Amino acid sequence: MDSNSFFNPPGLTREGEGGATGAEQRSPQEELALILDRERRHSISKAEALRALSPHLLNELLRPALVPASLSSLPCWSGGLAGSAGAVVGKAYFSAAALLEERKRALQNGEDGRCILVLNAAFAGDVPAIEAAEGVLSAEGGYSAHASVLARQYGKPALTAPELRINGTGAVLGDLEFAQGDTITLNVPYSGPPSVYLGEGELIPRAVTDELSEYIALAKGMLKKFHVRANVETPREAALALALGAEGIGLCRTEHMFFAPERINLFRELILAISAEDRKLVLEKILPMQREDFTGILRIMAGKEVCIRLLDAPLHEFMPRTGEELESYSGYLRAGGKPSPSPGELRARIDALRESNPMLGHRGCRIAISYPEIYAMQARAIFEAAQALRKEGIESRLEIMVPLVMNPREFRLIAWGKKIEGDRFPGIADTEEAVHWEQNAEPIPYRIGAMIELPAAALGAGDIAGYAQFFSFGTNDLTQTALGLSRDDAVGFLPAYSRFDLLEGNPFSVLDERVKELIVLAVDRGRLTRPDLVCGLCGEQGADPAAIRFCMDTGIDYVSCSPYAVPAAILAAAQIATQFQLEKE
Amino acid sequence: MDSNSFFNPPGLTREGEGGATGAEQRSPQEELALILDRERRHSISKAEALRALSPHLLNELLRPALVPASLSSLPCWSGGLAGSAGAVVGKAYFSAAALLEERKRALQNGEDGRCILVLNAAFAGDVPAIEAAEGVLSAEGGYSAHASVLARQYGKPALTAPELRINGTGAVLGDLEFAQGDTITLNVPYSGPPSVYLGEGELIPRAVTDELSEYIALAKGMLKKFHVRANVETPREAALALALGAEGIGLCRTEHMFFAPERINLFRELILAISAEDRKLVLEKILPMQREDFTGILRIMAGKEVCIRLLDAPLHEFMPRTGEELESYSGYLRAGGKPSPSPGELRARIDALRESNPMLGHRGCRIAISYPEIYAMQARAIFEAAQALRKEGIESRLEIMVPLVMNPREFRLIAWGKKIEGDRFPGIADTEEAVHWEQNAEPIPYRIGAMIELPAAALGAGDIAGYAQFFSFGTNDLTQTALGLSRDDAVGFLPAYSRFDLLEGNPFSVLDERVKELIVLAVDRGRLTRPDLVCGLCGEQGADPAAIRFCMDTGIDYVSCSPYAVPAAILAAAQIATQFQLEKE
Repeated sequence: MDSNSFFNPPGLTREGEGGATGAEQRSPQEELALILDRERRHSISKAEALRALSPHLLNELLRPALVPASLSSLPCWSGGLAGSAGAVVGKAYFSAAALLEERKRALQNGEDGRCILVLNAAFAGDVPAIEAAEGVLSAEGGYSAHASVLARQYGKPALTAPELRINGTGAVLGDLEFAQGDTITLNVPYSGPPSVYLGEGELIPRAVTDELSEYIALAKGMLKKFHVRANVETPREAALALALGAEGIGLCRTEHMFFAPERINLFRELILAISAEDRKLVLEKILPMQREDFTGILRIMAGKEVCIRLLDAPLHEFMPRTGEELESYSGYLRAGGKPSPSPGELRARIDALRESNPMLGHRGCRIAISYPEIYAMQARAIFEAAQALRKEGIESRLEIMVPLVMNPREFRLIAWGKKIEGDRFPGIADTEEAVHWEQNAEPIPYRIGAMIELPAAALGAGDIAGYAQFFSFGTNDLTQTALGLSRDDAVGFLPAYSRFDLLEGNPFSVLDERVKELIVLAVDRGRLTRPDLVCGLCGEQGADPAAIRFCMDTGIDYVSCSPYAVPAAILAAAQIATQFQLEKE
Repeated sequence: MDSNSFFNPPGLTREGEGGATGAEQRSPQEELALILDRERRHSISKAEALRALSPHLLNELLRPALVPASLSSLPCWSGGLAGSAGAVVGKAYFSAAALLEERKRALQNGEDGRCILVLNAAFAGDVPAIEAAEGVLSAEGGYSAHASVLARQYGKPALTAPELRINGTGAVLGDLEFAQGDTITLNVPYSGPPSVYLGEGELIPRAVTDELSEYIALAKGMLKKFHVRANVETPREAALALALGAEGIGLCRTEHMFFAPERINLFRELILAISAEDRKLVLEKILPMQREDFTGILRIMAGKEVCIRLLDAPLHEFMPRTGEELESYSGYLRAGGKPSPSPGELRARIDALRESNPMLGHRGCRIAISYPEIYAMQARAIFEAAQALRKEGIESRLEIMVPLVMNPREFRLIAWGKKIEGDRFPGIADTEEAVHWEQNAEPIPYRIGAMIELPAAALGAGDIAGYAQFFSFGTNDLTQTALGLSRDDAVGFLPAYSRFDLLEGNPFSVLDERVKELIVLAVDRGRLTRPDLVCGLCGEQGADPAAIRFCMDTGIDYVSCSPYAVPAAILAAAQIATQFQLEKE
């Protein structure tokens, strides 16, 4: 296969390029079937079968697909340049402002609010609309196809059609004519010409076929020491991840568990509570919900590693902002028979939580230093869930992860507790002990680890490993801090960096060399202290073949990525493994 | 002297502690006179004379002082605990909200708006008021004397008086009774009991006495290789810095040159301009102003190094926000005969500049990548100023510094320019060449260097030094990014870190170990590429004796600090130098 396309990040290949060599005429499904058939007939070796497909082809196999029958009667235009692959359906809006307004209206009315941004060229100011849109159709991309760069950044399909003409609220594309608000369908395949349809195509999620499972199993057979896990937040996602070949959960975020509409007001009450006593009352209500969350995930993942990251969210993100949200929160307080603060008081308290740089503010385990009760509640929910499952005969392999660790003292306090001024800071270990004592049960085995996502933590890894039993590299935040670059804000000015060739690629897709150096330092220093330290990488770059190669070279034990990216990650790792074997022969 | 107080940061000593041993009964002036007299009579050696005074005593000598006669008739209360030393005058306000409101009112009416925050205990929410206040008087400090910690953080005098009683809008302190809005005077000396006066004491800036000059000269005589420079923005400050012993300017910020009321609207127009053509028109108007700024400073600093940092500011900071500011900007546009956008349009364009994490956003030299004309204008102003001064017989020693460097390619482009798509990116070197060609003059010698304030730049120092002729470590930003810690936001949660003993001190006052490691790495890697690389440190920690010791150990050539801190920094460096000499004997 073409070694160049091998290391290309997904969606960056141009028309006619990419995919497996000679595969332009076959669908990804057909291609996979052909390879498996040849391997079964021993006309090619296992290694050859694995090297015959691009990992990106597996991504393509798993993208939601358009049902061909749903398209047959729709007016269609074909052509243009693929900016980023995928298939999407939505109402066309001709400006960022119009799109955002429509989306707000739709979401308030319980509609799905799927929109497609249709415009001449995208600029930095269009970022919020691109983020909110299903996809982007543009006539020109400005320099370096700004619209495409931004769409890729947000994983949105994008198509550039120079023939597109927009006049006020009407658009013309070849024979297609549509007005603002009309539903259109974009189909930007991995290879082959893109199309635009007037009307609504039917999208179906792709199923995990037997052939895909067989191919994944083949790839996993090549991997001895390296593993692929998934980033998962719900039991449903955990089941999907297992079906797609994940060997465990590398990142189970817990903040989204608080975002559910019926829970958000509880969490708001927790954060706005002034006394520790009030916080404890709220936490008692949250505890059973969290326990249920963890029970569901741990049951499905029985016997497999589950790495749970304790709460990591800028507090302000949770706060009510709009009049509606403020009213919802006040209503919630009244329903609980609690005195509701005046709107002015409430706003003042919320404003006091506002931060000038939330990314560098009161988040991650800093919250646990201010409010130790929160992590204590989460740890209790985890251990109670594991104890309950044990009674069903299910053993859990727990890894508990502390986010945004800055130094070893902070980690030691949170993980292992400490007596302070007569009082005890409730470490995670203390909570486990309390739970098994209360239940008169055997201890639950677990590991406590540090998320390494700050340069100071990477450099201090030797000391942190004195207390941490595993490391997980959060490459998104590590990239942000090492480069002093906010992911949200950078999309506005990074295109100029591409223009002048000042970066090897978007550092949030392709690991920066200096970020890699920090990771290498941290692995080496950590293992000097603790030779059996397990190391994983769970950032967005985790599914990139180049990042996987880096991880394997560095001695990192696993990557963790979104469930749908797991097969491609396994294949990429298997290809690297077979390559090394070939080189050895 | 007491080695402990030697390394204590200023204002951290408690009553009865600190200062030179046995000096409690003498004023700093008397102490200095005594030591110089002994040295002149050879009863002590130069080294002994230098080791006899604490660097902090020199700071104390230079603090604005209260004129004793102005206090004699004022009712006075003495006692309490010094939280942070200094003398201030202002109107007493009993809550953060009341203080901020009064300050806003005063500033809008052209009054000086000096206020003192008087309250029972300070909390995180009081930070903006502490920042705006002249000083803080509190009854209790909450845990770890939160009010004092915050006041020190902002360099504001603070006094804790447990006897203080606040009732609504009246306060009682011993025999003193005062109402909200009454003017009070706080005097918190470096040693000796603090006092509160009812009424306005007269503050005078301290003059540089002959004795102080003599002592500084004595200290400078001990320094062979290590230098102390000053952070200076105006000719007046430059003159002060020279009088206080500075050997050059280590940091001349240029963004404040844009903040002057008569210039701010020009800068707003520059940033809000949509086309490069419009930007050039505005820059032509800013150029002569900048040239004048630089001429003034370079003239005073004739023959001494002047390190000018090119523009580094989050753009949004400059934008009009209040109705008044928006009106001022629209009025400015109308006066220039330009079409003024509607308030809605203007607000939309300003909102588009808003960033979620401005500290990690579109700032520093990233602005020059987006708008190369801005640095080109600044470079032109600098070189034209130097050419003009040469005609007066004054030679400049120019160092031009590029802020927030992320990688070597970015620095190379900005410093040395490049041909791109037929067009030339205007590097600083290109501008120098253009200026001396236009004027048919000899080239102006200069150095171009990188501000190392991101972990990626510290790690990549070896490559950056291939293009950069000097490094300057910006330890404020390097601390923020290495630790993932926003200075503004951290004041709210760092007290909890102190409570649990999780930090060696406030990392914005005392260099963190990991930040030091990054600096050592950068110096070593930089000098491997360029053995004669000049390195300086210009963060807030630059005047701290412990930081100076670290710089001398690491081979850093100079520190740069505020003019008033220069004598203390010179003394600290001289003490370390004599200590090493003693150890060698």
